Amino acid sequence: MHQAVAAIDIGGTNTVIGLVNRDGKILGKDSLRTTDYTDPKDLVAAAAKKIFALVDVSRSQNGGCALAGAGIGTPNGNYFSGTIEFAPNLKWKGVIPLAEYFSAALQVKTVLTNDANAAAFGEMYFGGAKWMKDFIFITLGTGLGSGIVVDGRMIYGHDGFAGELGHVIVMQHGRQCGCGRKGCLEQYCSATGIVKTYLEIIRSSDPQALDSLGSTVVDAKTIYEMALSGDENAFYAFNYTGEMLGLALANSVAYTSPQAIFLFGGLAQAGELLFNPTIISFEKNLLNIYRDKIKILPSSLPENDAPILGAASLIWNELPAAL
Amino acid sequence: MHQAVAAIDIGGTNTVIGLVNRDGKILGKDSLRTTDYTDPKDLVAAAAKKIFALVDVSRSQNGGCALAGAGIGTPNGNYFSGTIEFAPNLKWKGVIPLAEYFSAALQVKTVLTNDANAAAFGEMYFGGAKWMKDFIFITLGTGLGSGIVVDGRMIYGHDGFAGELGHVIVMQHGRQCGCGRKGCLEQYCSATGIVKTYLEIIRSSDPQALDSLGSTVVDAKTIYEMALSGDENAFYAFNYTGEMLGLALANSVAYTSPQAIFLFGGLAQAGELLFNPTIISFEKNLLNIYRDKIKILPSSLPENDAPILGAASLIWNELPAAL
Repeated sequence: MHQAVAAIDIGGTNTVIGLVNRDGKILGKDSLRTTDYTDPKDLVAAAAKKIFALVDVSRSQNGGCALAGAGIGTPNGNYFSGTIEFAPNLKWKGVIPLAEYFSAALQVKTVLTNDANAAAFGEMYFGGAKWMKDFIFITLGTGLGSGIVVDGRMIYGHDGFAGELGHVIVMQHGRQCGCGRKGCLEQYCSATGIVKTYLEIIRSSDPQALDSLGSTVVDAKTIYEMALSGDENAFYAFNYTGEMLGLALANSVAYTSPQAIFLFGGLAQAGELLFNPTIISFEKNLLNIYRDKIKILPSSLPENDAPILGAASLIWNELPAAL
Repeated sequence: MHQAVAAIDIGGTNTVIGLVNRDGKILGKDSLRTTDYTDPKDLVAAAAKKIFALVDVSRSQNGGCALAGAGIGTPNGNYFSGTIEFAPNLKWKGVIPLAEYFSAALQVKTVLTNDANAAAFGEMYFGGAKWMKDFIFITLGTGLGSGIVVDGRMIYGHDGFAGELGHVIVMQHGRQCGCGRKGCLEQYCSATGIVKTYLEIIRSSDPQALDSLGSTVVDAKTIYEMALSGDENAFYAFNYTGEMLGLALANSVAYTSPQAIFLFGGLAQAGELLFNPTIISFEKNLLNIYRDKIKILPSSLPENDAPILGAASLIWNELPAAL
């Protein structure tokens, strides 16, 4: 019988679960609403039930599989303790020993980390970083998350909280961040950041455009579409975002000298609109010893399945290949 | 017979060599002028001769020792290749396979890295980081060098050039750096940086002080002495340096989440004058999950012997304890 792992991605709204083999094939998938469960133990019980159901289905469809472990990606996940700690985007307050709960429910080894680290593992096992030992993975979603891999190993730091590049201060006295400080990178380079940039541009230079927006809700997607259709302000918003991101990434290189930097998430899907200004700014701001060596690449993980592929690779990484 | 390693610190002006045992005891020390040797092979031959002489002396004084290896700290040293690469502060141009030269001359395993990384190894083996697995080591000399240790291992990156925090751009369009770019951290936080800061302060706000300097050469030491004797401009120069350094170190934490950050070098010896504003700025600029967890400490390596203790620990790190 083949082996598979349970992959669990805890999101603010939905929790996705999957059954994934060592090759990254998704044998089954299901989901539940995170917000339906005020007690995390109830979510674990419901998710475990669905995982066992997927294992049962795999018996008839794929010749069956044995559950070898479970991997969890979650906001504010701490790899060392297996806990979720004070996650502002989840209803559960304080410190939640979620890995312990899942391990008890599923009776397999369970590993947990934050969602950006999990996605970075996914890139290393099933994506474009398969043959790389040193890379940085950036998720450009509502915020900016990151995972830093050095010599084939994820950097966790002494307390499990390494790799918070979204909260590097890139502009003293800059934009207010949700973390309470000002000028954090994610206030410039994220879906939220580009909206702020766009609105700043039209407020200061093109009030007419502001009027013509009317009741349109401006989000990263509408800015993308406007830029594609020739709107100069939207195009400039992407340019500015890329300039800021390129500089921040050039600075990141001085820490870990990676072989590549992968961009993932909604904003990264804007393609050249984002990548062109980012790469120009990156090369311009790189120290000479690093120039023309480091690639900025789109993640090659499928957008929808990346979280569970990431959670799966997190646990596969700890299970001996011989099993 | 006990074992010892040859420790070699290549500087722009002098090269210091030492014989160091596994406990960090310096059994012998000597030096030669780097600038006397236009061909690095000649320096290696002369240094090797001095190393063998130290081994001979140790026979009579310390019961003798066998040479177990050699460690080299050098500007622009690349650990992976054992080479010095395009060092602006050395006369030798291009790529110099110095580890290979020393290994051939001494007939022992030889390891080379850049001087800041070597000093970081020294802190880990013989200094305040003895029991730490995650720390950052900063040298505040003419420039700013750094070594980053994660989970007990030095970060080298994919090409051997990781840990160049002196060249993180902290001020867009800021002070001109020798690297060709503008706004690098070492233009603010180093002996060179504080002089620039002091001169900027008095030029813009206190031209009288500028006149009264007359022909005095202003260096970091005179600014230190002026600050101690109550000179407000000098005191403010330290404050500004600390503010910039504290912010940069707070940003560094978001990468590797270290347990401590060690400050070494001339400027670090200014004590509270530098540490107080640095720590205040550091804590103010830290993301909340890191606050009150991370210590900023003076290096506990002896200033003069740090380079050879660093070079020695670099090679001890690779020799099995059983030897």
